[in-house]
Amino acid sequence: MSHTYEYPRPAFTCDCVIFGYDGSDMKVLLIRRAHAPFAGLWALPGGFVNENEDLQTAALRELEEETGVKDVFVEQLYTVGTPGRDPRGWVVTVAYFALVNLHKHPAAGSDDADRAEWFPMSELPDNFAFDHADILKVAVERLKSKVRYQPLGFELLPEQFTLSQLQNLYESILGLSLNKRNFRTKFLKMNLLKSVERQKEVSHRPAQLYTFDEERYRELSAKGFNFEI
Amino acid sequence: MSHTYEYPRPAFTCDCVIFGYDGSDMKVLLIRRAHAPFAGLWALPGGFVNENEDLQTAALRELEEETGVKDVFVEQLYTVGTPGRDPRGWVVTVAYFALVNLHKHPAAGSDDADRAEWFPMSELPDNFAFDHADILKVAVERLKSKVRYQPLGFELLPEQFTLSQLQNLYESILGLSLNKRNFRTKFLKMNLLKSVERQKEVSHRPAQLYTFDEERYRELSAKGFNFEI
Repeated sequence: MSHTYEYPRPAFTCDCVIFGYDGSDMKVLLIRRAHAPFAGLWALPGGFVNENEDLQTAALRELEEETGVKDVFVEQLYTVGTPGRDPRGWVVTVAYFALVNLHKHPAAGSDDADRAEWFPMSELPDNFAFDHADILKVAVERLKSKVRYQPLGFELLPEQFTLSQLQNLYESILGLSLNKRNFRTKFLKMNLLKSVERQKEVSHRPAQLYTFDEERYRELSAKGFNFEI
Repeated sequence: MSHTYEYPRPAFTCDCVIFGYDGSDMKVLLIRRAHAPFAGLWALPGGFVNENEDLQTAALRELEEETGVKDVFVEQLYTVGTPGRDPRGWVVTVAYFALVNLHKHPAAGSDDADRAEWFPMSELPDNFAFDHADILKVAVERLKSKVRYQPLGFELLPEQFTLSQLQNLYESILGLSLNKRNFRTKFLKMNLLKSVERQKEVSHRPAQLYTFDEERYRELSAKGFNFEI
């Protein structure tokens, strides 16, 4: 079956940048392409949007089909149609991104992708299919800027966590080491955390545990803040 | 001439939400559609992306063709492909937005649009073509959230301006009245402004004039801030 139009139309795809936090490292979900073009190269999970399919629905469908990862809250990143970005011709793609708890979202390959894997951000493949390295770079920048004005960590950390665990999360996203005292002072000032009773069973001095103040978390998610780290 | 593809493809368009500040009011640039569908209704300027045309290039081209407005720095807003959004069938659109000094960007109609007009945000048409009312709403929200973490005004205000003029700009964007003392205190704390000598020729007590500290403006544009208004 073929489809004929009066004017040229682009093929339209979606791609997903899924960052996964495993408690210590930030990773990104990639698939190894099973078919041409770029067969054997690593790429972002994604594929063609179906006729009259909502774009976000398409992104989640492709993500699950190619990697088994589902129940993810994705946000639209941007759309790119730079001429020459796809050897097959005129292809426009809309990219989505998400940051998830890796342990809640194990990945597996599929028919379209011969493998799906979580790559540490420090050990990315040398070559990506298409312009996926560029899309990933934009997603990293978006995520880094997001942590400065939106609370984050609710679904990424255990229910009770130490300030060290929280700091490690921020360091993983920002890709840099933060001053411990400075981080703690600034974070505590936002009143986002509630302290939890210290553990009593351990012999060494136990670290203070915290949970998020859910009401404050929602409030700051809505109105934003400035976390100058 | 016709174009045939193996799989269905969407028609792909771009739309521009151009906000214009005229020194007292916030306006938005709309065109009245000359052709079906929605002939006679007001719409965002935009149109079909050409084959292998960069998306932002397409948006600027359509903007100039339909309204005469050019030399605008647009940012991508989002892409929407909700089924049924266009009576012609499967049409995906990428929306761009910008905030410009209205006096520097007069608008005129064209062949595709029988009229182009700046509408005050408080006097918008009752009906828009397509889902353009929704796209405009998303752009308004994006602009409102942007003023809370990015400096703005450099190209919108005269080179030297009073705090009242600055406050009016923020009130126009946010669509609400701000407390004068509160606004001034918080804004001055950001060290974004340099005071200029008061005018000497006027008989009444002249208002203090300010300019932006360009270096600080660039710095805050890059790293963001939190303007809690």
